[in-house]
Amino acid sequence: MIEIAPDRPTDDDIRAGEVSVPLPERFDAGLYFIGRIRTPWTERGTCPRRGDAEEGPVCTLEIDPRWADALAGVADCPRLQVLYWMDRARRDLVLQSPRDGATRGTFALRSPVRPNPIASSVVSLVGVEGMNVMVRGLDCLDGTPLVDLKVQHG
Amino acid sequence: MIEIAPDRPTDDDIRAGEVSVPLPERFDAGLYFIGRIRTPWTERGTCPRRGDAEEGPVCTLEIDPRWADALAGVADCPRLQVLYWMDRARRDLVLQSPRDGATRGTFALRSPVRPNPIASSVVSLVGVEGMNVMVRGLDCLDGTPLVDLKVQHG
Repeated sequence: MIEIAPDRPTDDDIRAGEVSVPLPERFDAGLYFIGRIRTPWTERGTCPRRGDAEEGPVCTLEIDPRWADALAGVADCPRLQVLYWMDRARRDLVLQSPRDGATRGTFALRSPVRPNPIASSVVSLVGVEGMNVMVRGLDCLDGTPLVDLKVQHG
Repeated sequence: MIEIAPDRPTDDDIRAGEVSVPLPERFDAGLYFIGRIRTPWTERGTCPRRGDAEEGPVCTLEIDPRWADALAGVADCPRLQVLYWMDRARRDLVLQSPRDGATRGTFALRSPVRPNPIASSVVSLVGVEGMNVMVRGLDCLDGTPLVDLKVQHG
């Protein structure tokens, strides 16, 4: 399950029991966004909290043309793993208090609020048309940056 | 399954049918390494090609002390998803020719060679001792940078 974080959070958004830490002064590696995810959800409140379900509406992975050849064979992959970047999530909380549970450490949650806000979902393929990969099973905001797409075995 | 890429590849390492593209001029986001993975494997040739198996030797996730509180509750998570950075993999191949199969697009493979060389494995928890999380199910090189650790439901 992917919990929802507040939009553009400030310190005021810290809930009872939550703890933040200073972030490191520099990054250790860089990511390229390889495309964007198109979904029906434009506000956080409307996103389903599902994650890894293989149902729900069709969403589209719009891949940057640079990576066109990397899609060869994707049409033959019934299941795919999608990694995406939760670009609105703060990165400095180590203890979090989800609305639906007790305060826990960030690594014991799947909240987008984490040092590296990478979400992972397993989705089912609907089809590939040009640079667009249609899938079911995502629950993120429209426009979310795409980080990776891999065949999912088993 | 995680395929193995050659160490410190050069253009000479491109196999028949493989294609590279120019990488973007800048990164879109930055990652913090949150720790290192300790495994028995110090050379690529000795790494098992397993991935997501919940067996094999115990490996240790050494978490940076900055994130200590984020481990609260991890001891109660029998399954965890681990994201790690394949720092020796080239990032510019869009078509790849695995030793064990036909030439395919990068997104139809789980090879570490990809625009963002993030590997994902589901592992089983053995125990937590201080900043060390012991797990089974990894197949990466000793010293691999750790990017994320999340509870895995189901």
